[in-house]
Amino acid sequence: MKLATLKHGGRDGTLVVVSRDLTRCRAVPAIARTLQAALDDWAVCEPQLRQVYEAVNSGAVDAQPFDQAACASPLPRAYQWADGSAYLNHVELVRRARNAEVPASFYTDPLMYQGGSDSFIGPRDAVVADEAWGIDFEAEVTVVTGDVALGASPEEAAQAIRLVMLVNDVSLRNLIPNELAKGFGFFQSKPASAFSPVAVTPDELGAAWKDAKVHLPLVVHLNDKLFGKPNAGVDMTFDFGRLVAHVAKTRALEAGSIIGSGTVSNKQGDLWGSSIEHGGVGYCCLAELRTYETIEQGKPATPFMGDGDTVRIEMFDREGRSVFGTIENRVAALGG
Amino acid sequence: MKLATLKHGGRDGTLVVVSRDLTRCRAVPAIARTLQAALDDWAVCEPQLRQVYEAVNSGAVDAQPFDQAACASPLPRAYQWADGSAYLNHVELVRRARNAEVPASFYTDPLMYQGGSDSFIGPRDAVVADEAWGIDFEAEVTVVTGDVALGASPEEAAQAIRLVMLVNDVSLRNLIPNELAKGFGFFQSKPASAFSPVAVTPDELGAAWKDAKVHLPLVVHLNDKLFGKPNAGVDMTFDFGRLVAHVAKTRALEAGSIIGSGTVSNKQGDLWGSSIEHGGVGYCCLAELRTYETIEQGKPATPFMGDGDTVRIEMFDREGRSVFGTIENRVAALGG
Repeated sequence: MKLATLKHGGRDGTLVVVSRDLTRCRAVPAIARTLQAALDDWAVCEPQLRQVYEAVNSGAVDAQPFDQAACASPLPRAYQWADGSAYLNHVELVRRARNAEVPASFYTDPLMYQGGSDSFIGPRDAVVADEAWGIDFEAEVTVVTGDVALGASPEEAAQAIRLVMLVNDVSLRNLIPNELAKGFGFFQSKPASAFSPVAVTPDELGAAWKDAKVHLPLVVHLNDKLFGKPNAGVDMTFDFGRLVAHVAKTRALEAGSIIGSGTVSNKQGDLWGSSIEHGGVGYCCLAELRTYETIEQGKPATPFMGDGDTVRIEMFDREGRSVFGTIENRVAALGG
Repeated sequence: MKLATLKHGGRDGTLVVVSRDLTRCRAVPAIARTLQAALDDWAVCEPQLRQVYEAVNSGAVDAQPFDQAACASPLPRAYQWADGSAYLNHVELVRRARNAEVPASFYTDPLMYQGGSDSFIGPRDAVVADEAWGIDFEAEVTVVTGDVALGASPEEAAQAIRLVMLVNDVSLRNLIPNELAKGFGFFQSKPASAFSPVAVTPDELGAAWKDAKVHLPLVVHLNDKLFGKPNAGVDMTFDFGRLVAHVAKTRALEAGSIIGSGTVSNKQGDLWGSSIEHGGVGYCCLAELRTYETIEQGKPATPFMGDGDTVRIEMFDREGRSVFGTIENRVAALGG
């Protein structure tokens, strides 16, 4: 089942059921006005939404054209957005660039930060930021949970996964060093994220959803040029069950919590982070390429995003069909 | 005006207008069913809620008895909870205990972390946690904002403050060192917080609301013994306008965002953190007393909270009347 939120209709927008091929959609006010409302009462709403989904796919009910550009993030605002760092290749690269070891605990205890979730930007909205802040994208996979009890096991946590989305976890790289040095983690360095136009139930991914991971390439274009296509099912040290259980260790999760994978990153043979030009799978953020440049050449060569630069993030199934629609964020430089 | 949320009525509870003396309340479904709904449309709802407030105070309308124990946190779940560290005495003490300097930037750039906001506990709920985690309370003042634009000034941010509350920002001290060492800030070490039964508009504080600070003692009892009464208006390096503007530097805030002061802490003459027994104003968390013990005696003597221990947090106006009602959280030890 595929769901999206159109921007009109207030702060939480209007929930629509979207056809599998992303061409048509139908609002479902009699079932749930918003995605959060559906998640709040999922046991009741899900079967009804699935009936509409089947009917929209078969053409048995009226539907309107689906316009990805009219979408808000599926949850325009959420009660939780916590982002892991499950692809340790990224961490290893960063450490290697400064000749540091990765602590052994990083392979058993997920890194995770609490993100701001009160006002996400839409999948096609501009990233409004100052170029001096070092604007970067991070392409990731995320899940949306139902209620999860305090102390839930990874298996219980995996069972509570309701939806899967992509995200552009925008990062302001030049604000990070000072912020992390203060010891309290990211804050200003993580502005509003943008999620994919469409959220899908795990079953929609078919065989690509296995072991609480999405086994498909995450495709990133920068200014229409292919920049990365690492497989999100490869080199993910912590699956989504583990990530959600990490959150649940000391507190319960409320339905509608969004938990992210961190930047997708594949370890590429003896090479660490080969670019597309060199036959590799490329990267899901500029920082990784810059780190690779630092390792190879002593300093980064690729700049961060500037005014007008556009990143595109999407994922295709094995038949080449877009699963989540396309995130496409252009930078609108502040004061630029 | 005073507002609260009764637990019944669903995940977001039921908004009630509370009499100034906290004895009576009235639900207002025709104006707003929930506090978030009122904040989402504050310009329309506020004058109507104030009319009801006047009528409840004067006895002109029917009202039911107000039971603080029936309350959820005013926002049972929120889209944002970000907590500052505005009382630098606390930071100075911790650093002094390990002979470290406080970086100069800490006096100009607020420390802040993003907290989990998806499922707060109620003001009278138990703190369910493992004693081995080092259970501590932190008594603080918080504000709830309306919408705040990206880049808002401290003055603009202060104008967007809609409500004031107290909070017990529960902290798991023994989880903090490992977590901060990982570099991404607090996560498991900050379980669900509990807010005061009642949220009040700034005008309700009268002269005690000045320069975007609350100039009243914050009164903390541990197992019915006075533990702290520092004045929240004293030694607050960053007022709430500054704290909210810190959040707004790189992203807009959505209505209903909760921004906290950090543990209230007064610098006490030549003594740093005098206990109530020694004629001081005491502390708003156990960690501060333990730090003082470390400075004076080489190691902490006071244990963290154990099963059955209860903390009480409240604030009284100059006539001795409770402003926000009373937070009272008992520890229910996991597996204890």
